[in-house]
Amino acid sequence: MIDRYTRPSLAKIWSDGRRYETWLKVELAACEAMEAGGQVPAGTAAEVRAKAAGQLDAKRILEIEERTRHDVIAFLTHVQDLAGPAARWLHLGMTSSDILDASFALLMREAADEIIAGVDRLRAVLAAKAKAHRDTLMIGRSHGIHAEPIVAGLVFAGFFGEVGRARRALLTARDEISVGKIAGAVGTYANLSPDLEARALAALGLRPEVVPTQVVARDRHAGYFLALARLGTAIERIALTVRHWQRTEVGEAQEAFGKGQKGSSAMPHKKNPILSENLCGLARLLRAYASASLEDVALWHERDISHSSVERIIGPDATGIADFMVQRAAGLVEGLVVYPERMAKNLDHTGGLYFSEGVMLALVRTGMARQTAYEMVQKHALAAAAEVGTGAPPSFRARLQADPEIAGRLSAGALDQAFDLRHHLRWSGSIIDRALDERAT
Amino acid sequence: MIDRYTRPSLAKIWSDGRRYETWLKVELAACEAMEAGGQVPAGTAAEVRAKAAGQLDAKRILEIEERTRHDVIAFLTHVQDLAGPAARWLHLGMTSSDILDASFALLMREAADEIIAGVDRLRAVLAAKAKAHRDTLMIGRSHGIHAEPIVAGLVFAGFFGEVGRARRALLTARDEISVGKIAGAVGTYANLSPDLEARALAALGLRPEVVPTQVVARDRHAGYFLALARLGTAIERIALTVRHWQRTEVGEAQEAFGKGQKGSSAMPHKKNPILSENLCGLARLLRAYASASLEDVALWHERDISHSSVERIIGPDATGIADFMVQRAAGLVEGLVVYPERMAKNLDHTGGLYFSEGVMLALVRTGMARQTAYEMVQKHALAAAAEVGTGAPPSFRARLQADPEIAGRLSAGALDQAFDLRHHLRWSGSIIDRALDERAT
Amino acid sequence: MIDRYTRPSLAKIWSDGRRYETWLKVELAACEAMEAGGQVPAGTAAEVRAKAAGQLDAKRILEIEERTRHDVIAFLTHVQDLAGPAARWLHLGMTSSDILDASFALLMREAADEIIAGVDRLRAVLAAKAKAHRDTLMIGRSHGIHAEPIVAGLVFAGFFGEVGRARRALLTARDEISVGKIAGAVGTYANLSPDLEARALAALGLRPEVVPTQVVARDRHAGYFLALARLGTAIERIALTVRHWQRTEVGEAQEAFGKGQKGSSAMPHKKNPILSENLCGLARLLRAYASASLEDVALWHERDISHSSVERIIGPDATGIADFMVQRAAGLVEGLVVYPERMAKNLDHTGGLYFSEGVMLALVRTGMARQTAYEMVQKHALAAAAEVGTGAPPSFRARLQADPEIAGRLSAGALDQAFDLRHHLRWSGSIIDRALDERAT
Amino acid sequence: MIDRYTRPSLAKIWSDGRRYETWLKVELAACEAMEAGGQVPAGTAAEVRAKAAGQLDAKRILEIEERTRHDVIAFLTHVQDLAGPAARWLHLGMTSSDILDASFALLMREAADEIIAGVDRLRAVLAAKAKAHRDTLMIGRSHGIHAEPIVAGLVFAGFFGEVGRARRALLTARDEISVGKIAGAVGTYANLSPDLEARALAALGLRPEVVPTQVVARDRHAGYFLALARLGTAIERIALTVRHWQRTEVGEAQEAFGKGQKGSSAMPHKKNPILSENLCGLARLLRAYASASLEDVALWHERDISHSSVERIIGPDATGIADFMVQRAAGLVEGLVVYPERMAKNLDHTGGLYFSEGVMLALVRTGMARQTAYEMVQKHALAAAAEVGTGAPPSFRARLQADPEIAGRLSAGALDQAFDLRHHLRWSGSIIDRALDERAT
Repeated sequence: MIDRYTRPSLAKIWSDGRRYETWLKVELAACEAMEAGGQVPAGTAAEVRAKAAGQLDAKRILEIEERTRHDVIAFLTHVQDLAGPAARWLHLGMTSSDILDASFALLMREAADEIIAGVDRLRAVLAAKAKAHRDTLMIGRSHGIHAEPIVAGLVFAGFFGEVGRARRALLTARDEISVGKIAGAVGTYANLSPDLEARALAALGLRPEVVPTQVVARDRHAGYFLALARLGTAIERIALTVRHWQRTEVGEAQEAFGKGQKGSSAMPHKKNPILSENLCGLARLLRAYASASLEDVALWHERDISHSSVERIIGPDATGIADFMVQRAAGLVEGLVVYPERMAKNLDHTGGLYFSEGVMLALVRTGMARQTAYEMVQKHALAAAAEVGTGAPPSFRARLQADPEIAGRLSAGALDQAFDLRHHLRWSGSIIDRALDERAT
Repeated sequence: MIDRYTRPSLAKIWSDGRRYETWLKVELAACEAMEAGGQVPAGTAAEVRAKAAGQLDAKRILEIEERTRHDVIAFLTHVQDLAGPAARWLHLGMTSSDILDASFALLMREAADEIIAGVDRLRAVLAAKAKAHRDTLMIGRSHGIHAEPIVAGLVFAGFFGEVGRARRALLTARDEISVGKIAGAVGTYANLSPDLEARALAALGLRPEVVPTQVVARDRHAGYFLALARLGTAIERIALTVRHWQRTEVGEAQEAFGKGQKGSSAMPHKKNPILSENLCGLARLLRAYASASLEDVALWHERDISHSSVERIIGPDATGIADFMVQRAAGLVEGLVVYPERMAKNLDHTGGLYFSEGVMLALVRTGMARQTAYEMVQKHALAAAAEVGTGAPPSFRARLQADPEIAGRLSAGALDQAFDLRHHLRWSGSIIDRALDERAT
Repeated sequence: MIDRYTRPSLAKIWSDGRRYETWLKVELAACEAMEAGGQVPAGTAAEVRAKAAGQLDAKRILEIEERTRHDVIAFLTHVQDLAGPAARWLHLGMTSSDILDASFALLMREAADEIIAGVDRLRAVLAAKAKAHRDTLMIGRSHGIHAEPIVAGLVFAGFFGEVGRARRALLTARDEISVGKIAGAVGTYANLSPDLEARALAALGLRPEVVPTQVVARDRHAGYFLALARLGTAIERIALTVRHWQRTEVGEAQEAFGKGQKGSSAMPHKKNPILSENLCGLARLLRAYASASLEDVALWHERDISHSSVERIIGPDATGIADFMVQRAAGLVEGLVVYPERMAKNLDHTGGLYFSEGVMLALVRTGMARQTAYEMVQKHALAAAAEVGTGAPPSFRARLQADPEIAGRLSAGALDQAFDLRHHLRWSGSIIDRALDERAT
Repeated sequence: MIDRYTRPSLAKIWSDGRRYETWLKVELAACEAMEAGGQVPAGTAAEVRAKAAGQLDAKRILEIEERTRHDVIAFLTHVQDLAGPAARWLHLGMTSSDILDASFALLMREAADEIIAGVDRLRAVLAAKAKAHRDTLMIGRSHGIHAEPIVAGLVFAGFFGEVGRARRALLTARDEISVGKIAGAVGTYANLSPDLEARALAALGLRPEVVPTQVVARDRHAGYFLALARLGTAIERIALTVRHWQRTEVGEAQEAFGKGQKGSSAMPHKKNPILSENLCGLARLLRAYASASLEDVALWHERDISHSSVERIIGPDATGIADFMVQRAAGLVEGLVVYPERMAKNLDHTGGLYFSEGVMLALVRTGMARQTAYEMVQKHALAAAAEVGTGAPPSFRARLQADPEIAGRLSAGALDQAFDLRHHLRWSGSIIDRALDERAT
């Protein structure tokens, strides 16, 4: 985790101190379940909690680990130092992964909750922009080329939908990793029991792994990192769009530019879409982490520990980056400066060339074969297009009217209809409405 | 798609002929919706269907595409050649992606159904093995090292659960891509309507994209390929386990070996786990395809076509391989030859070392501090372990009994309890039962 | 391999027939080396070659494999059917991988040669464009925002350099996989010898693996696929640039548009950069294949066969796509229509804002602190920039002159110097020259 | 970078303080070149160095960046605060990337040097093991199944070769990124010159980018991260082998087990190959980082800044992990405890089944057809193999002798020859010798 791309709330989740306190929380939940079952003297957990909870010294634990080369044993040794004889009842019949996996689930879930809250903020600002630009005309583009008109609100509504699908994937992932095991060495409850486990995990808000091995199955975690990759990619699409809109020649929208901000150390005239570019880069990382997580799934037999180093890094890094991204994306969208006049100007850029389809269809309706109509309209459209950007006045409609074969089939009124922008966009509002309905999938 | 790793049913789905017939199916569904709306003369679709459906000549279409460099236009030209003037009503107000995306959804969904059927077969054979080996004792291993005993049925039950989670992900993905758009150039229904679209897609069993652009959003497809990657990885874990079991020194299970089969061109004595190795390789490909699919999501503005080349390749390849894998995995598990005697022999390999935890816990229960008990037992365990494989008789229990401090705390009867395998595995059956319950997650 | 993205020359390399003939070639090279060493009767290879070379029936071999489930044994059985008793001397002391790996090396190298020839074609057209546009002024862009002027030739020269680095990586990779082994089961020459191997491989133009296991080490192949990924990515950068140039608002260059070509099934006015978009998609696949190849490296012990399924697919697919890409990219660059007038117009778009740095530096040279100068120039630049695209006349220079603090330090002549485009670009030609020097790295 | 997997030397390279000092170093090198060229007053660099070098306050710079949102401008502001008016001559005509890219090159190269030193250490210990186990017999395995005998030294020699190839890739990568640019905004030297750049970079030990844009081309950096991925994968193969050797049933080698070390919190008897498992996990991360780096290459036009967030993370993380891995791998190999007696025992496990090929070849030499001989030997081999692990005495040789058809062709002496281990391994020593020759490729 690097400070630059991590919010404090996420940094806290993944701090050493927090991890050890979470381990203790799991040990105590298990201990209390054992007390309830009579395997451990009543009051043990309470005594250990009183002496150790909130008192753990991360540095001391790491020192002990230097010698034992085993993190959980180092932790237990430290707890025993703090809490005395009562601590010998901890970890009874348990194995390290019982602690580690339940703790990891708790931290990953907490991270997911932060991220989802950010997603909700992002969705809210997207919905607001979709409504605000319900009637903001702009040119739609395919292949980067002017295609036909749209309204800007549709773009935000589309993002709203895509981020919503990423959210659903994240909720599923959150549920899939909300699982622990207190089942001992290879998951057989040799010195424990399913009941005890159920009680302990319920106290933590987790449910038991269906078939525990020494660990919780790692396809669950891969599912989570895949969901983050998908979320990152949804945000990348938003960011990429902003970058395109902010291009000098397009100029349809711009990232907010702070007072005192400097765009370039060399060029005082620059305002760059740096937030969006940053988001595009971070999305690459989320994809990369997902890829590593998939290699963690096929562990040997009842477990090997090769997943551990990967998770120690990508657990914090991927959630920290995803959390940072949703917040930054929300800020980006919220602060986005949209230029409707420039959109209108760009829309006019080709002099109505985007009505070429309407004209072709009008010709088809007069009985002309589709391919004939296509080629007839294409001829005039390409000639008119060749002049775009040269300063010549737009000539598409004039060329159509001057063509006797077209004029013979389409009256001026019929051409007017084909060039009617209001008709063209009569459905935009209802698309936006249906998109903002939470039930849309 | 290469024949070696493709079943005929999948090859058929992705054939040229099938693709073009599906395009026609979508065009006709749209045409019928237009007829119902009065935009197109009644009977048009019926006439085109009669003259063109089942008659499309893939080779001819490709020839036309050579010239137009546009596949859908080539297709429409060919349909017009076959069906005559009625065909001019096809594609009215539509854009290529209206056809392509709905068709791709239909084919991807059909592929998903084949794969899911295979997953069900795989789950059935895993469940059968889990039941059959409910009482087959074997050593559980962590880090590749003998840990504590399990039953073989647990392993199959674990796979059953993991494949079940992959199945759920696949069902979600299937639902997410069951979406089309008949919304025209940039998705605004400029010359169409949402009602018309809804009618046409319903006839195909699809629902409309919430906010269509020129295309259906590609995060849907990425979700699908991610689900395949996850399925592949779940199968990889099964295959990896078989490879480990079949190792010469382990010998606990073996892939079925056909009559006439030859393991090696050089070494007549070889029986190799080649099916399992093959599955491990194919899983790598599914991961790779998923990675490419994520790069397809962030298209430019209302679409760019960079996703197309990727999908032309990974649509067939990833579904073909996934389908092949589930069937091969099912065959692998079904035919797997399990050697319970060898499992029993391996279980005895360390002379009961795996009871070390039980002994330690028994000592803790006498009031000894956990770390003291750990070190006391570890000393004898490591000494006994050093002799494993040397031919010396197992010495762990003898060493424990010979230690006066241990003997002073644990009677022979207490040691017997710590060495009781039946007690150790008392929960295995119920874990298997809960795993095979379809509602388990 | 799909026809759409495969040239016939590459399809031929990876055909079944070609593979089996290559296997035979390797067997015969080994056989001749054995004849020379006296292990096999003289004339054996000649006899087998006469009866079998060019006669192999791929279909028949696949039928035999159905039964033996071993491809090389099926091949040898077929050769024995064709060539009779002499064939029993083939494969003596050898293992399947001796044949497979040497053959794979030969085919991969041949594919590399095709690709490299394409790279050379691409480099030649890039060099030609770099020279042709040595003086074609255009605006340089950072972050998609106008920065400072460049010449178009620099862009092509940069691509020339990057493709050159990809070429060097490919040459290294070609050399690294030009390795075989004729060393038997686990690479110990138990029934062979290093001398015999050296002789056989030399006849094929290969050198021996340094430490053979049952196979040639797979890091070599991963290196090759990584080189292809890098090449694909270099081409992606070219294609991405063309897509940006062809944007409607930019319009600085355009892909060649064929006679009869149609850009859109709906919109007759469209000319889309589809070749470039296609190349961007294919680059994603090359990256994905490289990722799978890296997972093939860490095989078990002296080999496992998990790499085989991956290579059967990505060997043909990755080389076929890379070959297709270099040729398509060469055609794209060759046919690219550049619009210098539009470049000039875009350059003027901001009314000389790009000279902001020069003005700032001129102020620094008068003794002003850099940050002061920066902020003074930024104020006028951002004010002028706000008017860009609104139709207002460019005001940057006027604003500067109207600022008494600036006018007090910089005379009109000094401002002229800061606004001198010729001075600005005085080094462009020499950069292009040094880039086109083959020794540049 | 997380402490657990980062050595202090690497952490230092990537510290904030070190980064800013390196930026200053580059600024001063450029300033001195300008002094030599007369653009800047003599003594400027010396004065700034005296007042600022070693005095930079990273925290202060980050505070300034909060406001300017531009890191290099914040840095320059801080330098001006420290060094006063002389500092206004810094950065003259330069752009941020001039500083950032040269600095990144210097840091990446320094990291490479650390990694390469570690690779050399790893190669030395591999060579030592290869020599030490030149005659240590063990079974060679393909598919995890006993194949034919090898010596352990061969395995280490193979690793030596593979790590050597990774080293060469790393040297190439180091050279490719040893490039900077002092060429201004979009790389045209508008306010600089190639000579000045050459002088400044030479002082830093860098060479100029051939065609600078605003940045150094990112394919260079991708090449570097790909080389790290390859190195990580080579180490993964070593680690995977150790994990297999240490399996309980195999037991041929073991990671060193420290005094006081504990293998499991639950099971005192465990010694687990945790270093090796850790290395396998880390290799996955290096592959993932490489994948992200490839997406950084195709920047927009003369640059976009999307690569920056990726590099800020993977620059430190990938080099830190690679450095950690080579050192850990070297320690792993150095401390590896090899058990030759266990290797010998395992070699005997199948009772000489691995001589099946020799027997088959002996039969072929008597004139029998290869496939006939194969099937004859296979029959006895599979029968003997079925008894392996059951406790029955090895029966392969006895079965062969009892087969009249075989006995009729092969005398007892001829069978002895086929079962001669010394003959089998006569080349092992010379393979090791050629592998340890530095010129081997």
